[in-house]
Amino acid sequence: MSAPAAHWGELVGKPVSDVDTPALVIDLDAMKRNLSRMAEFAKKHHILWRPHAKLHKSVALAKMQIKAGAVGVCVQKTAEAEVMVAGGVRNVYITNQVIAPGKLARVAALTQQVAAHGGQLAIAVDSMDGVVRLAKAMNEARAGDGAAGVATVIDVFVEIDVGQGRCGVEPGPAAVLLALEIRKHPALRFAGLQAYHGKAQHLRRAQERREATSQAVAAALSTRQLIEAQGMAVDLVTGAGTGSLLQEAASGVYGELQAGSFLFMDADYAQNERDPAQPHFEHALFVKTQVISSKSSHAVCDAGHKSHAIDSGMPLVHAFAGERVLDYFNGGDEHGILRSAAGCTRLPALGQMLWLIPGHCDPTVNLHDVMIGVSGGLRSGVVRRIIQVDARGAMT
Amino acid sequence: MSAPAAHWGELVGKPVSDVDTPALVIDLDAMKRNLSRMAEFAKKHHILWRPHAKLHKSVALAKMQIKAGAVGVCVQKTAEAEVMVAGGVRNVYITNQVIAPGKLARVAALTQQVAAHGGQLAIAVDSMDGVVRLAKAMNEARAGDGAAGVATVIDVFVEIDVGQGRCGVEPGPAAVLLALEIRKHPALRFAGLQAYHGKAQHLRRAQERREATSQAVAAALSTRQLIEAQGMAVDLVTGAGTGSLLQEAASGVYGELQAGSFLFMDADYAQNERDPAQPHFEHALFVKTQVISSKSSHAVCDAGHKSHAIDSGMPLVHAFAGERVLDYFNGGDEHGILRSAAGCTRLPALGQMLWLIPGHCDPTVNLHDVMIGVSGGLRSGVVRRIIQVDARGAMT
Repeated sequence: MSAPAAHWGELVGKPVSDVDTPALVIDLDAMKRNLSRMAEFAKKHHILWRPHAKLHKSVALAKMQIKAGAVGVCVQKTAEAEVMVAGGVRNVYITNQVIAPGKLARVAALTQQVAAHGGQLAIAVDSMDGVVRLAKAMNEARAGDGAAGVATVIDVFVEIDVGQGRCGVEPGPAAVLLALEIRKHPALRFAGLQAYHGKAQHLRRAQERREATSQAVAAALSTRQLIEAQGMAVDLVTGAGTGSLLQEAASGVYGELQAGSFLFMDADYAQNERDPAQPHFEHALFVKTQVISSKSSHAVCDAGHKSHAIDSGMPLVHAFAGERVLDYFNGGDEHGILRSAAGCTRLPALGQMLWLIPGHCDPTVNLHDVMIGVSGGLRSGVVRRIIQVDARGAMT
Repeated sequence: MSAPAAHWGELVGKPVSDVDTPALVIDLDAMKRNLSRMAEFAKKHHILWRPHAKLHKSVALAKMQIKAGAVGVCVQKTAEAEVMVAGGVRNVYITNQVIAPGKLARVAALTQQVAAHGGQLAIAVDSMDGVVRLAKAMNEARAGDGAAGVATVIDVFVEIDVGQGRCGVEPGPAAVLLALEIRKHPALRFAGLQAYHGKAQHLRRAQERREATSQAVAAALSTRQLIEAQGMAVDLVTGAGTGSLLQEAASGVYGELQAGSFLFMDADYAQNERDPAQPHFEHALFVKTQVISSKSSHAVCDAGHKSHAIDSGMPLVHAFAGERVLDYFNGGDEHGILRSAAGCTRLPALGQMLWLIPGHCDPTVNLHDVMIGVSGGLRSGVVRRIIQVDARGAMT
């Protein structure tokens, strides 16, 4: 959706100090370590990973993840899927409900486009009406193809609500009926179950996450068995986020992890008590900001919530010494208020550069046209690449 | 910053039912009424208005406001000023601190560009260092201009902190010293005081807002008198937002209103007890959204906080009957959870369209490439124009 901005390219090769504020900066070294740890983790657990591209909305990072072993990417929106496919990603899963006939026609067209390149599109459903509407759109696309058309099939996951309380049909019989309905339509292939427990991701204590996830695992397992009792195979149970992925990976029920945030690692996720067996993911995404006003009581920086999302709390201020010495308070759309944390009295001077760790990376990335990739550290590093947020604002 | 998206134009002339979701929609009729009421209000109070374009980030809407009587527009960011000037707006006030030499060079270049068209750029300062840096940049731009150059001058407002607790020097002697410093630099013209009390805008009771604003008025007045005692004129005291503008307009101290939100009217502002003498502003900005999942306990729509900002609370669900019947709960980046409000039990059906009133319009607009202008009502209206969010993401 974003126009390629030629001037960004001029930054490549320049020191990080040349980056104007506020700006979204990726610590490429940390990101690569996160990627390797995830790839190793999935390999060790013999589990597929299809990371969520709703985080980065970038074709380049999607391809980087696939190169590292991911089977494809997940997205939430039809428009995100279109951006990924246009960029050459051939395995895309829309992990969400699509209801509007106009969007479903786009999904069907995209399925054909991906299939023509040997790839595969997938989508979630949670209602009978959703299945029927999807089948109708797929049939219309097939009919429109005429004699030259390929009889393409879309992978369809039945989404069950395993505790999130959002979309998803109840685990059990209702899910079985949806699977049976999917089987009736030649253009749809029942691909398995989506069982994502979003709320479990952010439970702070490891034990709480284990308990919440074990309920999700049990619900997915019992639903799978009910479907299998109808003589249908359940090829894949897919789900998991960065907060809980250890449990899903070890469950023996889930076959695929959708976790995306591990790549950048939110401030919010870092507040979770880490399960010892869980990979260690580092903060790799920062908002560079400058102090534009300084007083005895507080300082003000030029990054407010038009530069970073605050739905999961305020950003943390990165402290190079390894200790947090400044607290960030909401200063509105364009400002952040900085105060000394307990026991520290030094406030940053006018003009000083600071680095914020976003509370939630997904909606933060969506505020920016580009991510500036830096290697060699935030202080003395060099800009190595400019990564376009290709699907920024792609919300339909 | 946004690329013109050709396909949006195809919507013009179509019924509002053709607008895909989620989408940002302006009720053009309501917006025009808000604009007229503001113009009348300013005229009645013999006060200038330079509305904040940080709200709409649109050149077209800035020009519409100027045509209705505004003297120009305010912005928060250098990059926003550049977009406005590039679009032909000739009176732009950066109501914020600019400290980075690179940005100040852009400000100086912009000042020359605007002056060459008979316009005027203005900026705020709140520190001695800020004044010196600005003067240096202006002098360098003048020197770079050579013999052909015009000795352009930038208008400089001293920002005083009248209760916001963010930027701004203390009212009183410290502000006087800044005014005296500005006078020393030929490229700078001391234009007056900026006295904006952001916190006063959102005090719910009219009496509380009156009290907070009266303190701001008193601080601005005493500071003005101190500066005048130094033999300097204070041409203008500027400030005010949509929540408090009645007080500033009636103060006899403020000469200009910066209020911007009145044009669209946030859900948050609507929760303020209205002062009877204050103009009535209507909600004119909506996020159109569709129900994509429906259960007995709740429904889920396709607009989450990647479609609207939630810093000032969740959006309201517009009820056509005049009564609020649904409550919106946070469903994450791409979903909203809808539950029946007290006393109402009917949940919307799968596929139903809903209209959300954003809690805060400024950061909501910044999430979208375009605003879809509809006339004739949200249900049966027609798309009349596509308004580009020209300065979306313009944050440096």
